[in-house]
Amino acid sequence: MSRYAPVPFPQVKLEGQFWRERLDTVLDRTVPSQHRKLAEYGILDSLKLPDPPPPLRFPRHPNGFTVQVFWDSDVGKWIEAASYALAHRRDADIEAKIEAAIDDLEKAQAPDGYLNCWYLGREPDKRWTNLRDNHEMYNAGHLLEGAIAYFQVTGRRRFLDVMERYLDHIYATFGTGPGQRPGYDGHEEIELALMKLYYLTGMRKHLDFAAYLVNERGRQPHYFDWERERREAGEAKQRYVFANYEYSQSHKPVREQDKVVGHAVRAMYLYTAMADLAAELDDADLQRACEVLWKDVMDTKMYVTAGLGPSAHNEGFTHDFDLPNQTAYAETCASVALIFWAQRMLHLGLDGQYADILELAMFNGALSGLSRDGEHYFYANPLESDGTPTRWDWHTCPCCTMNVSRLVASVGQYFLSTAEDGVAFHLYGGIASQVEIAGTTVGLREVSNYPWSGEIAIHVDPQEPAAFAVKLRIPGWCEGASVTVNGTPIGLDIIENGYVTIDRRWAAGDVIGLDLPMPPERLYAHPGVIMDAGRVALKRGPLVYCLEEADNPGGRVQRLKLPRNAPLQPEMRTDLFDGVVTLRADATAIEETSFTQLYRTKPPKEAPATLTAIPYFLWANRGRGSMVVWVPEATA
Amino acid sequence: MSRYAPVPFPQVKLEGQFWRERLDTVLDRTVPSQHRKLAEYGILDSLKLPDPPPPLRFPRHPNGFTVQVFWDSDVGKWIEAASYALAHRRDADIEAKIEAAIDDLEKAQAPDGYLNCWYLGREPDKRWTNLRDNHEMYNAGHLLEGAIAYFQVTGRRRFLDVMERYLDHIYATFGTGPGQRPGYDGHEEIELALMKLYYLTGMRKHLDFAAYLVNERGRQPHYFDWERERREAGEAKQRYVFANYEYSQSHKPVREQDKVVGHAVRAMYLYTAMADLAAELDDADLQRACEVLWKDVMDTKMYVTAGLGPSAHNEGFTHDFDLPNQTAYAETCASVALIFWAQRMLHLGLDGQYADILELAMFNGALSGLSRDGEHYFYANPLESDGTPTRWDWHTCPCCTMNVSRLVASVGQYFLSTAEDGVAFHLYGGIASQVEIAGTTVGLREVSNYPWSGEIAIHVDPQEPAAFAVKLRIPGWCEGASVTVNGTPIGLDIIENGYVTIDRRWAAGDVIGLDLPMPPERLYAHPGVIMDAGRVALKRGPLVYCLEEADNPGGRVQRLKLPRNAPLQPEMRTDLFDGVVTLRADATAIEETSFTQLYRTKPPKEAPATLTAIPYFLWANRGRGSMVVWVPEATA
Repeated sequence: MSRYAPVPFPQVKLEGQFWRERLDTVLDRTVPSQHRKLAEYGILDSLKLPDPPPPLRFPRHPNGFTVQVFWDSDVGKWIEAASYALAHRRDADIEAKIEAAIDDLEKAQAPDGYLNCWYLGREPDKRWTNLRDNHEMYNAGHLLEGAIAYFQVTGRRRFLDVMERYLDHIYATFGTGPGQRPGYDGHEEIELALMKLYYLTGMRKHLDFAAYLVNERGRQPHYFDWERERREAGEAKQRYVFANYEYSQSHKPVREQDKVVGHAVRAMYLYTAMADLAAELDDADLQRACEVLWKDVMDTKMYVTAGLGPSAHNEGFTHDFDLPNQTAYAETCASVALIFWAQRMLHLGLDGQYADILELAMFNGALSGLSRDGEHYFYANPLESDGTPTRWDWHTCPCCTMNVSRLVASVGQYFLSTAEDGVAFHLYGGIASQVEIAGTTVGLREVSNYPWSGEIAIHVDPQEPAAFAVKLRIPGWCEGASVTVNGTPIGLDIIENGYVTIDRRWAAGDVIGLDLPMPPERLYAHPGVIMDAGRVALKRGPLVYCLEEADNPGGRVQRLKLPRNAPLQPEMRTDLFDGVVTLRADATAIEETSFTQLYRTKPPKEAPATLTAIPYFLWANRGRGSMVVWVPEATA
Repeated sequence: MSRYAPVPFPQVKLEGQFWRERLDTVLDRTVPSQHRKLAEYGILDSLKLPDPPPPLRFPRHPNGFTVQVFWDSDVGKWIEAASYALAHRRDADIEAKIEAAIDDLEKAQAPDGYLNCWYLGREPDKRWTNLRDNHEMYNAGHLLEGAIAYFQVTGRRRFLDVMERYLDHIYATFGTGPGQRPGYDGHEEIELALMKLYYLTGMRKHLDFAAYLVNERGRQPHYFDWERERREAGEAKQRYVFANYEYSQSHKPVREQDKVVGHAVRAMYLYTAMADLAAELDDADLQRACEVLWKDVMDTKMYVTAGLGPSAHNEGFTHDFDLPNQTAYAETCASVALIFWAQRMLHLGLDGQYADILELAMFNGALSGLSRDGEHYFYANPLESDGTPTRWDWHTCPCCTMNVSRLVASVGQYFLSTAEDGVAFHLYGGIASQVEIAGTTVGLREVSNYPWSGEIAIHVDPQEPAAFAVKLRIPGWCEGASVTVNGTPIGLDIIENGYVTIDRRWAAGDVIGLDLPMPPERLYAHPGVIMDAGRVALKRGPLVYCLEEADNPGGRVQRLKLPRNAPLQPEMRTDLFDGVVTLRADATAIEETSFTQLYRTKPPKEAPATLTAIPYFLWANRGRGSMVVWVPEATA
């Protein structure tokens, strides 16, 4: 099969209502408000290094917040998101703000290229002494992603030059050569950023260093042990809070890892880079490791929303089937990072199972992290609530905020891929693009009201008639899909790995009709997930649904029981959230007012009721209230 | 009504199979093994103070365990449990071990009476500088309870003298008089111990100091603030981990408290002393505060097992109806302490609702903390398990281990109360006693196989015929109780506050027949407890039941669904745990083997199955396996 590569987002114009609304919100509100928050919380000031450094090692910002070791990364991520925003609309104010941050970073950079504001401003002599905990390469990775994005959108090299100087310093310091230390970061991230730089520049040293970092990880003697032994004596007392290297996926070499463990975001960033390297180096072993890890997370560790990592303790994974709903951590960043990994896996062989998860994570676990107003967030994304948690307008660890804004601002990159002789549609929702295929420019316009409707029209307009393949993803959740070309049905016995391929000579004016029926469906969890026993989840198309108290007033939504055979009625509600398909069903409701005790022998009074479900990602936009994804089910 | 007071346990001989077995296990195995553990973990050594104290402030015991501020209390609690054991059977070896610990404590005591081994051995100049966190009075309280128990059983005063010297020092140091500090402990306990000493000695100063501690608590200016400001500058950095005074129930004066908050064991110990004081001082305000707090915990915060405190974070309470099952903390100590509180509340007015909870906590939340073999424990008592947690043979904070042993070794005290003119039976299970009522000695023998059966015979044998009241508790869970006297039924229209009163002239040979029908029953939780939506708990008599994998092999027990109308069949199983009544029912079972994915649209295959439930307190005695109290329910 030809090698397909994603079409970059600036070439994919979002026209559909769903993504256009989210994108406009992110451009109008999220990106500007995030800059205000970075200022308010002292994160931008933390780049302005005092000269000489202050005597205190851990000064607080005047606003009272402790300077955090990962703040450089937040600046990098904001620059990345803001740069993507500029690709949609240039904005002198945003550009000036980016330039000001780059000014500070350029000034902060040490003569030898080192650039970590936390260390430079506080403990310049301690740099590179604690890769395990202190995020130096992680920060470098996010700054690098910001620099790449800014360069790609504006053509301005200054930030990229700064980062390349920093990378040269890192490449000189770390490695397996003479006089080098075989270090790697406790928080993976730089690996995938280096792969982006490699794709941008074609310079082999970036690929090589990414490969070195991935391959060195978890080898014995363990770098983090060596490093700890060299730190001052005080370290002995400083117990490593996670007490194991599974936390950072460094418990063994990555090719020997077959279980997804530890901090969820760390894991996903690592696997993303592994998949990048597997593709670039045609490394079958590494690809197999990725596939084994993918299967492990899919079979035993993923929430139905594509949330990852049940535990707040390690922000990560525990044991198989441990997927508590109310206390789910399911960090927004982890679902965003799962999208990255899924995209890389998808492009290893265009297997639709990866696109299915990419789409699931996007519409559910990731998008739930951002409020409708674009200025409130979830860090943890529980699947059930008694009404206690609510969205916050910032977080002392604001990683998720910019992860979701950079995702939305660049979401176009997930829709299309092209090869020499074909184009593949992964996602639907209304896009327009111009791509080069088979030696001609092809205009593509996908028109739909997806995800609310599965009726899709795709206009294929080559400048010159040309023979090439159009591949259409038929989602794994879809049964009974049908395709027409210029009104003529084509057989779908040729679906392969989740894609139907239409190979023909295309000419301007050709129209593909794709119908993806999306009747509401029920999902049942593996009995190993004891939390979901006797419960059912509702889904329509790619959207997981939930019951929220705002639509089901009269008590906590967990009082509602859905009979197994009750039909689920989709209903387009234009009065809600600028248009949303809800699901309605006959249900029974436990009457709460008759309960005067905590426990009683009399079965709860139940009355017929109607149940209304909304897409999960929209929850917690109407004040506090209970919510449930896994609805108690009534069975005979 | 006459004032009823508990009959002390040495006067109540346990003859019934249920408690005899538990008592023998505690005497034979638990008390001796706990002494071995106290030695192994360095807790006994921590009483042996080096002279002079070592330069290191926080030395580790040679075995590697950090000396804990609360270790004195563990010694005190073991002496208390061991003394109760001696009351059942004298044992020279146990006595020698107690005496050895008393030797060490006597030697450790400072000339001015101060006696806290942690401070004396490490930071003698820092004593009384951190009542909020460091448990000095808490330790004193447990040592005092040990000294009282040892004195009561052996008549030996030495330990009590040591403790009275310590108390004189405390009374001189703390209070509202000139030159005194208005302090109280961050961990309540000494208050109830002082009440015991007051009951033993009749000395008013002990009552007064207990009343002072309770009344001073939570007043402004706050003692813990004053104390913190006086500590060294380093303190500023030491953030108070719980960051609020609700944790120690010192957020406001106790009479103004109307919500149960904070650390569960702290709360229960405080309320116990409050109820003691309310009774002793006829303090209606304090009694009302107790009643309001009782209602709050009963209506919104207690597990069906009488477990208390859902959260591991604060080892305590959160918000109303927050009762997660799998992550339930429900510390054994908290249920034991609830028994103490319930006993005090019961004796304020002989209201059976308190005895109901006392019994519920005893047979479920407390007894679950001790294994069948008497040497393994639960600190947290979850109501659901995927098979991960298991019992441990010790804990770095071993509070629960000795709390359950001292409870069982003195359980006789909860069965009977007497007044001038009557006797009240609270619990059943086979006891014999001799009490003084109405000027004569009355032999009492209650014969039953309770809690397995509700058929009870009570032999009332006064030396001289005498008129007095026999009060029998009719448990709140019981419907259709019947009573006979010498075979003649008596009407039960006179049940008052959960007790039937038989007022007559009793003569030797009189026999009361009491029948407490205990058909298995289903319990439903208030819909506010979202975790129990669609689930049902099973109970028979005072015992809450659970499904455990050992009795329901073939997968996790959460796969089983109990139809609402399926009869629950009690079955006496002599082959299990030396005899236990199980509950069996027809059920449906989800077949796990047909699940090849984590989520699927096809409803799980269900097959008819039989479900077997065992009493909750017996779980986790047969290796690892899943368990559930709240069983998924099948309803039409």
